[in-house]
Amino acid sequence: MSNLYAVILAGGAGTRFWPASRTHRPKQLLPLAGASDEALLAATVRRILPICPKERIFIATGRHLVDASRQALPELPAENFLAEPLARNTAPCIGWAAATLRRRDPDATLMVLPSDHFVRDEEGFRRALLRAVSAAEAGFIATIGIAPTRAETGYGYIERGERLDEEVYDVVRFIEKPDRARAEQYVATGKHFWNGGMFFFRASRMLEAIDAHLPALAGELRHLDEEAARGNEAAVLEASFARMPSISIDHGVMEKVDRIAVAPGDFGWSDVGSWHSAWELLPKDAKGNAVSEADVLIDAEGNLVADLGSQGAKPVVALVGVRDLVVVRTDDALLVLPRERAQDVRQVIEELKARGRTDLL
Amino acid sequence: MSNLYAVILAGGAGTRFWPASRTHRPKQLLPLAGASDEALLAATVRRILPICPKERIFIATGRHLVDASRQALPELPAENFLAEPLARNTAPCIGWAAATLRRRDPDATLMVLPSDHFVRDEEGFRRALLRAVSAAEAGFIATIGIAPTRAETGYGYIERGERLDEEVYDVVRFIEKPDRARAEQYVATGKHFWNGGMFFFRASRMLEAIDAHLPALAGELRHLDEEAARGNEAAVLEASFARMPSISIDHGVMEKVDRIAVAPGDFGWSDVGSWHSAWELLPKDAKGNAVSEADVLIDAEGNLVADLGSQGAKPVVALVGVRDLVVVRTDDALLVLPRERAQDVRQVIEELKARGRTDLL
Repeated sequence: MSNLYAVILAGGAGTRFWPASRTHRPKQLLPLAGASDEALLAATVRRILPICPKERIFIATGRHLVDASRQALPELPAENFLAEPLARNTAPCIGWAAATLRRRDPDATLMVLPSDHFVRDEEGFRRALLRAVSAAEAGFIATIGIAPTRAETGYGYIERGERLDEEVYDVVRFIEKPDRARAEQYVATGKHFWNGGMFFFRASRMLEAIDAHLPALAGELRHLDEEAARGNEAAVLEASFARMPSISIDHGVMEKVDRIAVAPGDFGWSDVGSWHSAWELLPKDAKGNAVSEADVLIDAEGNLVADLGSQGAKPVVALVGVRDLVVVRTDDALLVLPRERAQDVRQVIEELKARGRTDLL
Repeated sequence: MSNLYAVILAGGAGTRFWPASRTHRPKQLLPLAGASDEALLAATVRRILPICPKERIFIATGRHLVDASRQALPELPAENFLAEPLARNTAPCIGWAAATLRRRDPDATLMVLPSDHFVRDEEGFRRALLRAVSAAEAGFIATIGIAPTRAETGYGYIERGERLDEEVYDVVRFIEKPDRARAEQYVATGKHFWNGGMFFFRASRMLEAIDAHLPALAGELRHLDEEAARGNEAAVLEASFARMPSISIDHGVMEKVDRIAVAPGDFGWSDVGSWHSAWELLPKDAKGNAVSEADVLIDAEGNLVADLGSQGAKPVVALVGVRDLVVVRTDDALLVLPRERAQDVRQVIEELKARGRTDLL
């Protein structure tokens, strides 16, 4: 598979993990899951190294995040960081990556992966990726369908149809976030999967699909090809991105194109969507506390303590008689909230914006 | 009253306010009550200035606390800080202060006051002090009896007898911390008062009482007088303190001596005994949060946030959906516990000792 390239989507604002996540340090740069201090982005790269060498792993990120992303991934070639000059949702980002890699390798097959998810069974994950890659090489636009483990209303779903190949299926349709009743049906059918935002395709196939369904984007990508041929892409990139439609790959392409395949997988996946979700994934003591050993816990259960301070010695955290709390410390902020209210971090963000405290965002 | 001297007892380990209070920064050096950033010790001095000039206010403290105490009280003469070389409970401390001040002024009358209490009605407080001072000048050892406002089992009580003078009474007995049933009786009698640890006496009268009831201490104080006459007190002080019995003035003198008076007072007093008590005394927002204005509160009630960090800019604290919590931050520690469990800070201290983390104590 010497034509296989990975494109890891590493943009994002990451407000759900404030105060750890900031504009300059979004979620994928944080060690939010697993036993080590490995950032989610670094874990994403490490997971695919057995099937894709580092020379062919590309990071699509925002211009302001290139330095931090390179620091998190020192083993990757510096030129493999694709800096988007403007955030324009996933269709322009993936289209530009496809165009860029097709110039380098006309037979390029891409796997596009989020940078900020968690996978427990990494072997099983790679097996699912390789099934999707095979479908992509056979001409499909493929995706991974994650076997649902609960009636989640926060994710999109994929409904599979006929079997195309061993453990690869035709896609009947993409389904937006369902209500609870439908989500409960989906869990039971065995034909519905969570859409984990992973896409697999020949670069040329994706660019044809963009030609057919997103002509304005296609025009900009041809323009960038022409400028790149003259060595001038960097000079025009920002203006071109500014003209691109801001649309997701799901809406812009996946829901419209035919010959879509889904490779189901069941590998212990999480999108690490909140502090509560991070707590679920982190190692915990006998009383369910995800804390560091230096912390002092008296009659405390189910808590998460995260310390993202830059100081050499982290402060000792003492929790007495508290339960199911999230406590997050950085140099300039401290957050305390119950795990079950983890989603309400966004209210803090809104309040800080209203007060003009953008220094804290 | 040019013979009136104040001796403020400012030793103490102050573990109940960890992590704000430390060996080198005990409770009286913290701004734990009132609207300003004034430390309890500074408030104690300010309260008595209208009745005792600063030249006659003395601070009895531990050797390791002299520098910090002087910093907190820059207006006091440097020589007014009496550095105890060893902690030997209150009888040696008060005896030594009485001996020291009698050398300076044979007619000295002392008022001995704790350094770490809170008083709401400062005028009323000073009126009570002056009544006790009058009794002291008349030859009594006097104390203040605080009108009890609840059946507190954590304090000692004083039972008054016959009236001696206007609002000054004979003392029938000192009572150790009572059980709840007796405490409830005491609140109802009108004859029982909280013992606030304030003592008023002519220096010569206290030294006679020590002669009578604590002969070992009396011997050391005579020895110190003799050495002081030769300009040699500093050289022998530590060895002398080491030989003194470690006993409280209550047990050693007050419970044994006759001609004791009590001046009742009702001036909004608190011993600021815990983080919960500090929360009661601090200014609060409409939802009962004692926090700073920069903090962000979403659906949070009854919380106390204390920031004792040394950094220039204090971190913003965001509380979401939490109630009745105490959150205390320093540079090297963070404490989170429910207000109602404020007494359990001592369990943290014990755990830190067990782990050898004396750097945090």
